[in-house]
Amino acid sequence: TKALAILSSDALSSVAYGPEQILIVLATVGAVAYWYSIPIGIGVLILLLALILSYRQIIFSYPHGGGAYVVSKQNLGVIPGLVAGGSLLVDYILTVAVSVSAGTDAITSAIPILHSHTVFIAVLLVIFITILNLRGLTESASILAYPVYLFVVALVIIIVVGLFNVITGNGPQVTHSPIGTTIPGGISLFLLLKAFSSGCSALTGVEAISNAIPNFKEPSERNAAKTLTMMGLILAVLFSGIMFLAYWYSITPNAEETVMSQLGSEIFGRNIIYYFIQGTTALILVLAANTGFSAFPLLAYNLASDKFMPRMYLLRGDRLGYSNGIITLGVASILLIIAFQGKTEQLIPLYAVGVFVPFTLSQTGMVIKWLREKPANWFPKMITNLVGALISALVSIIFLTTKFNQVWSILVFLPLIVYLFLTIRKHYEAVGDQLRLNNDIPDKIKGNIMIVPVAGITKVVERTMQYAQGIADEVYAVYISFDKESEQQMRDKWETWNPNVKLIVVHSEYREITRPLLKVIDQMEQKAHENGFEITVLIPQFITKKNWHNVLHNQSSLLLRAYLLHKRSVIVTTVPYRFKV
Amino acid sequence: TKALAILSSDALSSVAYGPEQILIVLATVGAVAYWYSIPIGIGVLILLLALILSYRQIIFSYPHGGGAYVVSKQNLGVIPGLVAGGSLLVDYILTVAVSVSAGTDAITSAIPILHSHTVFIAVLLVIFITILNLRGLTESASILAYPVYLFVVALVIIIVVGLFNVITGNGPQVTHSPIGTTIPGGISLFLLLKAFSSGCSALTGVEAISNAIPNFKEPSERNAAKTLTMMGLILAVLFSGIMFLAYWYSITPNAEETVMSQLGSEIFGRNIIYYFIQGTTALILVLAANTGFSAFPLLAYNLASDKFMPRMYLLRGDRLGYSNGIITLGVASILLIIAFQGKTEQLIPLYAVGVFVPFTLSQTGMVIKWLREKPANWFPKMITNLVGALISALVSIIFLTTKFNQVWSILVFLPLIVYLFLTIRKHYEAVGDQLRLNNDIPDKIKGNIMIVPVAGITKVVERTMQYAQGIADEVYAVYISFDKESEQQMRDKWETWNPNVKLIVVHSEYREITRPLLKVIDQMEQKAHENGFEITVLIPQFITKKNWHNVLHNQSSLLLRAYLLHKRSVIVTTVPYRFKV
Ligand SMILES: [K+]
Ligand SMILES: [K+]
Ligand SMILES: [K+]
Ligand SMILES: [K+]
Ligand SMILES: [K+]
Ligand SMILES: [K+]
Repeated sequence: TKALAILSSDALSSVAYGPEQILIVLATVGAVAYWYSIPIGIGVLILLLALILSYRQIIFSYPHGGGAYVVSKQNLGVIPGLVAGGSLLVDYILTVAVSVSAGTDAITSAIPILHSHTVFIAVLLVIFITILNLRGLTESASILAYPVYLFVVALVIIIVVGLFNVITGNGPQVTHSPIGTTIPGGISLFLLLKAFSSGCSALTGVEAISNAIPNFKEPSERNAAKTLTMMGLILAVLFSGIMFLAYWYSITPNAEETVMSQLGSEIFGRNIIYYFIQGTTALILVLAANTGFSAFPLLAYNLASDKFMPRMYLLRGDRLGYSNGIITLGVASILLIIAFQGKTEQLIPLYAVGVFVPFTLSQTGMVIKWLREKPANWFPKMITNLVGALISALVSIIFLTTKFNQVWSILVFLPLIVYLFLTIRKHYEAVGDQLRLNNDIPDKIKGNIMIVPVAGITKVVERTMQYAQGIADEVYAVYISFDKESEQQMRDKWETWNPNVKLIVVHSEYREITRPLLKVIDQMEQKAHENGFEITVLIPQFITKKNWHNVLHNQSSLLLRAYLLHKRSVIVTTVPYRFKV
Repeated sequence: TKALAILSSDALSSVAYGPEQILIVLATVGAVAYWYSIPIGIGVLILLLALILSYRQIIFSYPHGGGAYVVSKQNLGVIPGLVAGGSLLVDYILTVAVSVSAGTDAITSAIPILHSHTVFIAVLLVIFITILNLRGLTESASILAYPVYLFVVALVIIIVVGLFNVITGNGPQVTHSPIGTTIPGGISLFLLLKAFSSGCSALTGVEAISNAIPNFKEPSERNAAKTLTMMGLILAVLFSGIMFLAYWYSITPNAEETVMSQLGSEIFGRNIIYYFIQGTTALILVLAANTGFSAFPLLAYNLASDKFMPRMYLLRGDRLGYSNGIITLGVASILLIIAFQGKTEQLIPLYAVGVFVPFTLSQTGMVIKWLREKPANWFPKMITNLVGALISALVSIIFLTTKFNQVWSILVFLPLIVYLFLTIRKHYEAVGDQLRLNNDIPDKIKGNIMIVPVAGITKVVERTMQYAQGIADEVYAVYISFDKESEQQMRDKWETWNPNVKLIVVHSEYREITRPLLKVIDQMEQKAHENGFEITVLIPQFITKKNWHNVLHNQSSLLLRAYLLHKRSVIVTTVPYRFKV
């Protein structure tokens, strides 16, 4: 049941903002339209039922975890798989952005003085979660289960007490618009669909369990399916309860205080129970954000092992690949939070599209799978997934049409990211071809020339010369002079020191270093290659005792190394010199 | 005269905010106190006279440019020099922040719809100036002189028309408080001093000419002194004119519209002349910000060549050192603008202290110089600088006492930066001692071992092996395996390929790479050093054709190289492999 709790945080937490989204749309017409939240809520529940049934089937078909990327790629082909993958990246980034913003709303509703610091608090929370994850917080940490239990308890309390008030007539003073009230001027179907699609944000996160089946005890499929059903039931109860009470108490959405907070205030006043509800709400939302941090690096890893994303998300060793994923997610969600000024209701449309596009694709994938494999009893199963696919597609389309202003960017982003995925894959394949051994016999190296740029005669130069003379056939020191005086001085010093190395002095007219040095190296390289010699440039690097001391050294050698490697493809040997201070 | 124009932009532009600062302080008492702006303005003019006379003497004494850092260091010692240097860094950063903020105020006063975007516009302007300077905009670009001429013309127009109105009685409908009106409840000396010190912000920038004498035609000192006097006269006229009109029109400072804009509106209405005035004001302020970009990198260079700042500001070659200064200045002023939300009047106290502390120190330095050298006629000269020093010190002290809340941070910053300067110097000197050649004879290297980490058998490995075999006495390939299967596969392939190199296979239990590899290298290094052998690790680096392709490669090799250099001080050879795609 711990698994149930932690995996459910994403789905259950959306009760904190889902009902509010419906009311925000209805509020544009007026309080008189609030009764529509009841039929719309019933529509959301039906969709929830369809999704739960569909996902149960995915659990049994993909017992090793059936993310939308895998299911779509296997059944629909690469491009739909990549569309699903791209949407899922959006989904996870927005899981973090939306959950943290909504969590911040819960906090600022309870403590209004913090309201003007919304963005700051949200960014701080993301940084906090990012650091926890970088330090290796595991989803299985059982302490993470408690916020979910507490949240369910808190919501059950508010719903039970609220309903008790309603039944005993101790309800609100304000009267809600009775169901069926006609709206002066009418209400458009467009607006109702908009409200419905907004409410579907309450369903984001229900897919989490189907991705994590191996985490369940054996028989894991059966246990995962049971958990999913149970979670669906709890979600249905909490959503219905909050939706009904919000309608009955005629709560008007308000940018400064969430619907949940208003409801809590109305029922309990601002007492300890109210703060308990707000606190657990904030906690479960932070936990929901955390699920994004488990899912994103895994998806990035899968995409990277299929060569659609950079290898940096694949790096094995020291969790580095995962760390890259975690950092990418943290930075992306912070940027989104800042761009949207932490406004939850403006982030939600993007989030919902990011969720419902992969919903649609994975259900469609399942339909194709049933049609192709036709196992026993395939027809009802196919119909179940078909219904799931159709409703999900419908919700996506409703979002795109009713909230085009807010979600058009995803229409730009998805083709772009798919193109990027394909470009990356193409690059890796071309590189692989190039690296494969063939029967070309490489040119024989006849000897090695080493070049050491020197700025004076120091211990570092001494050590570097010694190393170079040990391995190279010829060693040259290159000194860039700015004036005749220093030039002569250097020549004299060199002669006195006499390390049996030829000193090449180049005069730089404009006090430049990099360019004259490159020129010398170019000339030597040409000559060397004609004779089958290989050139290596030796650059000393100071290893400082304190990290910040690095700022005081090495800039020019870093620059020179980058130049030599990238512009000239010269072999560069870095000779470290460790400071004692 | 072009030199006059461009060098004067910093000083003349402060007329755009100086008078306003006086009124902002007086406004806390009420409009009835505005008449005090006249005596306070006269005080500012007297201070201007003292500064001009003092700086004329600095020009003749330091014909190669007498920045406060140089003058203070030479005459007062290192610590006062560093205090001056630290304050000047503040001065230049705030020259940019204040001028750009004030320029943005000029723009948003004219186009109120932009007011809510103040910070954004200011940051954009700084980025714009930074890029221009990185691309090598020179102060001598003669086009830069025009904004100064136009600004002077604009201000002369507003002053002449304004005075004409006043004389002909077509002046404002509102009545100004007559000079000498008593304030009910009285006015404190504290407040008057505060207003006076605020008004001194109009004098920031007068030092610019004394730093740039070599830019003048011969006889350069005489020309520079003439230019300084002329600029002082123009500044005095413009400041007096604006101050008087602001008083006569009884302009009340206002966060949304500058005093200059209000004055322009009153006199001309919002017609073309008004927009011309606002436009040229914004332009000259941007130009003033630009002077910070000429001065800061030069000061950083001077401090760096005295080893008080990191060598990165000194890097000769390709203007890199200057670029580092320009970027530092751009970033610092953007951070300040954001921190102060682009509020000019809150930035000004810091700016003024940053200006008047070096004023004080360089004048004091001159006093000491006269006392020490006693040339002909030294006494009146000494007195002139002494008066300059005393008044500057007084202004600094007034600032520190009357605006402590806004300038305390500089009292923290200055000791800190001086400490940092000294620490950096100490580090460089310690390092220098260490690097000096002594008579220790380094251990003889008996042979070279090269280690090549391999992940498979590719062309890159082939090339790297060939290179290593050409120079090393012994070569080892190290392969990290995660499972028995891949381990056997690799061994078989290696045997078939047979490059005459011993393959060391290490099994990594936790799918890590870096740690097992380091362990192998550590073991080999210990053995090698016992036998007097040197170890080099060869790491291939992919050189991609397009820059962004770098993201797709090299992360693990970069990490490994950093580890080997910094944690182990192992010599690392980077073997570039250039992709054809
Ligand atoms: K949900
Ligand atoms: K969710
Ligand atoms: K989600
Ligand atoms: K000035
Ligand atoms: K100035
Ligand atoms: K200045």
